This record gives sequence, structure tokens and C-alpha cells, in this order.
Amino acid sequence: MTTSVCEATYRCYDDTADFHKKALGIAVGLTVGSWTDLPEARKAEMEKHLGRVVSVHVHEPEGFQPGERYADLTIAYPDVNFSRDIPALLVTVFGKLSMDGRIKLLDLNFSPAFTEAFPGPKFGVSGVRDRLGIHDRPLLMSIFKSVIGHDLTNLREQFYRQALGGVDLIKDDEILFENPLTPLEKRVETCMDAARQAEAETGQKLLYAVNLTGPTSQLAANAKRAIAAGANAILFNALAYGYDVLHELSSDPDIHVPIAAHPALAGAYYPSPHYGIAAPLLLGKLMRLAGADLVLFPSPYGSVVMPKEENLAVQSALIDPALPVRSSFPVPSAGIHPGLVPLILRDFGHEVVVNAGGGIHGHPMGTAAGGQAFRQAIAAAQDGISLPVAAAQPGNEALKAAIERWGFKE
Amino acid sequence: MTTSVCEATYRCYDDTADFHKKALGIAVGLTVGSWTDLPEARKAEMEKHLGRVVSVHVHEPEGFQPGERYADLTIAYPDVNFSRDIPALLVTVFGKLSMDGRIKLLDLNFSPAFTEAFPGPKFGVSGVRDRLGIHDRPLLMSIFKSVIGHDLTNLREQFYRQALGGVDLIKDDEILFENPLTPLEKRVETCMDAARQAEAETGQKLLYAVNLTGPTSQLAANAKRAIAAGANAILFNALAYGYDVLHELSSDPDIHVPIAAHPALAGAYYPSPHYGIAAPLLLGKLMRLAGADLVLFPSPYGSVVMPKEENLAVQSALIDPALPVRSSFPVPSAGIHPGLVPLILRDFGHEVVVNAGGGIHGHPMGTAAGGQAFRQAIAAAQDGISLPVAAAQPGNEALKAAIERWGFKE
Repeated sequence: MTTSVCEATYRCYDDTADFHKKALGIAVGLTVGSWTDLPEARKAEMEKHLGRVVSVHVHEPEGFQPGERYADLTIAYPDVNFSRDIPALLVTVFGKLSMDGRIKLLDLNFSPAFTEAFPGPKFGVSGVRDRLGIHDRPLLMSIFKSVIGHDLTNLREQFYRQALGGVDLIKDDEILFENPLTPLEKRVETCMDAARQAEAETGQKLLYAVNLTGPTSQLAANAKRAIAAGANAILFNALAYGYDVLHELSSDPDIHVPIAAHPALAGAYYPSPHYGIAAPLLLGKLMRLAGADLVLFPSPYGSVVMPKEENLAVQSALIDPALPVRSSFPVPSAGIHPGLVPLILRDFGHEVVVNAGGGIHGHPMGTAAGGQAFRQAIAAAQDGISLPVAAAQPGNEALKAAIERWGFKE
Repeated sequence: MTTSVCEATYRCYDDTADFHKKALGIAVGLTVGSWTDLPEARKAEMEKHLGRVVSVHVHEPEGFQPGERYADLTIAYPDVNFSRDIPALLVTVFGKLSMDGRIKLLDLNFSPAFTEAFPGPKFGVSGVRDRLGIHDRPLLMSIFKSVIGHDLTNLREQFYRQALGGVDLIKDDEILFENPLTPLEKRVETCMDAARQAEAETGQKLLYAVNLTGPTSQLAANAKRAIAAGANAILFNALAYGYDVLHELSSDPDIHVPIAAHPALAGAYYPSPHYGIAAPLLLGKLMRLAGADLVLFPSPYGSVVMPKEENLAVQSALIDPALPVRSSFPVPSAGIHPGLVPLILRDFGHEVVVNAGGGIHGHPMGTAAGGQAFRQAIAAAQDGISLPVAAAQPGNEALKAAIERWGFKE
């Protein structure tokens, strides 16, 4: 009999531990509880519930200093032990264990039976592209400059100027909650009206990801209210509400718009080498399994720092064909200006959303020119034309001004 | 005009930063976005949304080594900026900021207007005591020895033996999910039947905290099914589902049983000095605000280690009269045996739940004697009798055997 298992990989720091013994303790302790003292007859029944040590890789360099010795442990957990939901999986593999010394959850591999319970992103990379009718270039997303304390007129103006610049997606700020100045449905109506006005000029569709907030039990209803008011995308602070809530929203047939997951609070989990949950799992694999169509995560270019290899591992988890659900659109965010576009495309490839806030609103010629500069940079990078050359071409004045303002990297 | 604010305190490590400038950047950046470039007329309107620096305490010892310099920053966030829910507050104060270098969220102080939206624990310390009819001693909780792969007959036997020992609460293992061997309602019926059988012998009531699991949208219905089947308490993996879910469950008038919050996954947040959310906030103040009647957290005595001052700070947050909701019962857990009872009572006082697993089931005379040993230890500690003296008294054979097995501390 083959047991269907989910595998968890941990990095565990300890200067003296017997890591093989520790791994065995986890495998038994987090499944059947005890093994050696079970009667033989019970062992036969319990075997299908018993966790197994898959591998133990000890990192112990010659003459290592205190704090340098660690091991990567992989444990297989029979999926018969838990229900088909992310809370059950996380509590099983990292509930009590998260509090047991210096241990970080690096990765999870789901059994096919577990994965089957997750439809994943409803749209994913190709579905988002279909909605926009854009298949031949990276997408461009922009963020409001500021939202708190602004009224609908002001928000509409900000929205319109962003849309005029040729962006594909505009997202709410993640800290814009239900409020009397710009309540959900009125905000959607106003911004979508601005989108139509801009489309009449630019001929370009766009998605507006409105921030979905409120009590957990009201989120689905709020999403449907927003959609009824015209919303064609949703922004969601997934970690503040839990992966299971994202999964339920993305699985709801009446929420038929792309969902962009925001990484708010992610820094409480991923940056420590010793504790927490690694970014490629936290913001990559689990967000995708839970059904995020787009996932924002810290870019390697800005003030919000994540080591570049970790950024790329997040991206990889979002598009890895090994997971049998649609890909999530990677949206590396923070510190992006038009001069970085060739680098972004080299690092992340074609299937990426270039996302900017200050790099659009801070453009010397204004917000609309900010978007245009990005579009010009994307076109140049795709044609293999260096940014200074492209900037000198007629019609690319916005790009020229952006490069003069922020410089460029190639 | 006085602005109603919630205050957040962070510890921020940086060898060179101008912490005053950083604090100002947070206060402005996470509220109105920008300030100095606003027209004067707008400033008047925006002032009520503007965050303020409350204090900056720089810790910079003479000749400090790299990595040792930090500051504790307190920022006041006007509560007009966010809705009255924990996800909104956390995303505001620590959403993007959590990813901005070495920064840990230490504490939150809620505005009265924010707190008003939270009824807090429905029972709390006094309500749990009322339900049990026990007001004159610390309570005793026990945990099943092992649950995965066991059927109802086996679980009933485990339950009955624990109940016979005179425990006040029995909790499910947090990794027991909905499963064909011991499904929710049958498990409740079977265990509550064992509880009645034991009560006929001991004369003692007890609460059985059944593990509430499943899809987020079904949790309230599952809780009500469990209650209809006779459940008189609930165990909940609050961090796996989110504080807001706990808040909604605890606020539901039809869920009229105490809720015990389990700390599963807490170690992904609190142990790093540089990142995450401090334990007294994570497991103390926020669990209580969200309505947990009992809160389990790592004890300072076991293998799951938390520095003792942090344990006591969690306890303090659970019972601090400054928060205008009922107190949550502190349940320090892991590594507890009867010989530690005097120490537990000295550390945590009278309003504590003594919680044991191995320290009950591993008793040389069996599970029932394990519970009795704890009750005898509690009685001795309350009477100021040292454990060896009490153990020598007639009727206290269970305590004597426990001390021979595990020793004692006084």
C-alpha cells in the first residue's frame, strides 16, 4: 500500500542536536504520537497514519562557529491525518513545531489528493491576459499616490491620470478600508467611470483591483457588491485573513474577477533565517494554491528588501508547472521606475506585472506621463533597444524625462 | 480637537539609521502618504488622518557592536483611517512595514472607539469558573495522549480515565481534524457520555474543548453542530484562521460555550528578536480582544521554550485590567508535571489553568492517578504544604508516585 503524503521541509539550527533523532521525533510526534511502545497488532492499523523521515541534510562545516550548524529535514505526513484545507495542513506540520527551537518552514509538497481540493487561480496569467486582451508584453500596474482622507473626486482624478498613461491594472492602496469618503460601491462606480473615460481616449481596457475588506463573514458579500457595482478585479490582504479565506473567495463561482493578493504582514513571517515561513512558500506556493490570480511581493530593487534569489524563488513558485493549477501573475513591487524595466524583464521574464507607485506619480511631466514612460520602456526592452536610445526617439519624451529623473540600469 | 488613535510600538534594529526620521516616515507614510508637499488648505483637512510620532527611544550603548543598535518607536495612528477590525489595524500598522528591514511589532494600544467594537471573551476567567462551579483553586486541564488513528471506543476510554482523575477541562489535540474514525458530533456525544459517567463517580463537572476545524465559512455552523451534540467548550487554532474569525465566533450569540485558543503556528511570529510580532501581543492582547476565554501559550518549564519574562508578559496581557473586556484564562502549556505545581502557582498566581499531557498519561499508576496527583499537588500548594510532606500524607499516593517519577521544584 502506498501512503499518500504531503511533505514538509524545515531548516533547523542547533549546535549539538542529533538531527536524525529530531526528524524521527517530528515524524512520530506530529502523527501517531508514539510508536515504539505500541502493541504489534496496533502498529499494523496505525502504520498508514505514521509520518516518515524522507531526508536529513546536515550542514556542519569544519570548525563551524556557534549558530552555524543546521540541518534541512524533510518529513512525509500521511494526508489521511488532516482535512483538505490549508489551516489543517499548516497546523499539522508547523503548529506546535513552530515553537520548538530555531526552526523555519521552508517548503511544502502537496499530495495529489490534497491538491485536488484546490481549483487554484480562476484566471491566472493567461486569464488575466485574456481579460485585458494583451498577450504580447509584460503588464503594467499602478498604485494610487495617496488615498486616506481623499474624497471620490480626488480619487477619480488620480485614477483617470493613471489610466491615461496606459496602465493595465490600477490597484487600491491596501490600507484603504471601508470609509465614509470613498465607500466601496461608490468608489468602484467612480473609478470604473474614469476607466471608461480614459478608454475612450486610449482605446485600452484596464482592471481596477478594489481593496476587499471588512468582517471575514462579509467578504464574499462585499466582493459581490463590488462586482455588481462594476469592479473587474479585487485586491486582498490574504495573510491578514488567512489562506483559507482566499481559497473560499477564489473558489466562489460568483466572484468571477481576478484576485490580486497583497503581501501585507508577510514580513512578520519570512525574513528571519531561524523562524517563520520562507517567502517562496508563504507568498508563492500557498498564495497560488489558495487561488490568487496575481501576487504582489517585494522586488529586489526597492527599499523593501528581499535577497534576489528569494524573489526569484517566489516567482518560480507562482509559475512552476509542477503545481497542477493555473499560474499566478508575479508582481514584484516597490522601488520600481522606468529605468529598471530592462532589468525586471531580464530577471522575471515576459510573464510579469511591472508595478509602480512613486515611479509613476513622481514623473516630472505628471502621472499620465509616468505610465507612458513605463510603456515606452517596456516596448524598448522588448525590441532590444537600450533605454537611452529609445528615449531619444520622437514620441518617447516621457521615457526621456523619466531616465533623466531616475537613471536606468541595463 | 483630540484625535482618537491606536498606538503601535516597534523595535527597529539599524546600526546607522536616523530613528527619529524613520519614525516620522512611518507616521506619515502609513497614513496620509505625504505631508510637507500638501497645500496648506489641504493640511487642515488631512490633519485628522495624520499619524504622529509618540516616542523614540534609541538603545545605543557606548562602543556597540554591529547589530546591537536599536530603537523602540511608538506611532499613533488615527483610528478614523481604518475599520473596527483586527485585519484592518494590523495591515495599517504592520502591513507593508513588516517587510521594511529589521522591525518587530512589540505592542498595540487600542483607542476606546476601536475597543468598543470588541465584546471580548464571552466567559473569561470568572465565566469559566462559574460554568465549572470552581472558584477556590487553579483549574486543571488535560490533553489526550494520542488521537490520530484512534476510534471512538479508544477516545472514550482515554477521556474517561482523564475525567476520573478530577481534571476540570479536557481538550482535543489541535491536530485532530474532521475524520471518519472520530467525526465531530459522534466524538462530542461519546466524550460527553464519558464525562457524565465519570461525574457520577467523582461528582465533578468538566468542560470538553472539541477542536473546531473545517472551511472558514463553515466554522460557526460546525461549532453549533458540536454544541447541539453536547459540546460545552471549543478549541480553536486561531492563528491558522485569523483573529477576525475568532472574533466572529466569540461574538456569535449562538456559540454560548467557552473558546480556548491554541497557539499553533505562533512560533512563526514571535521568537525572532528582529522580526514578527511579540508574544504578549500575539498570544496575549490580540487573543483576548478577539474573545478567547482561555489562551494556551508555551510554559517556561518545558521543551517549547519562551523566556520566562515573556511568558509572564503574555499572562499579564491576558488579565490586565486596563483592557476593558473580560480576562482570558492563562494556560501555560508543555512540560508540566505535578512537581511543578508550586512553581506554576508562584509564577502565575491563582488564576491559571494547569495543563498537562505527558504529566498525566505518563503517571506510573495510570492516567486517572495522573490527574489525582495534580489535584493533590494543587491542594498542597494552596495550603502551603511542601510537596514531599503532602506526598507522605495518607490518600496522596498518586502525588507520591508522581514526585518519585518526575521530582519537584519549590
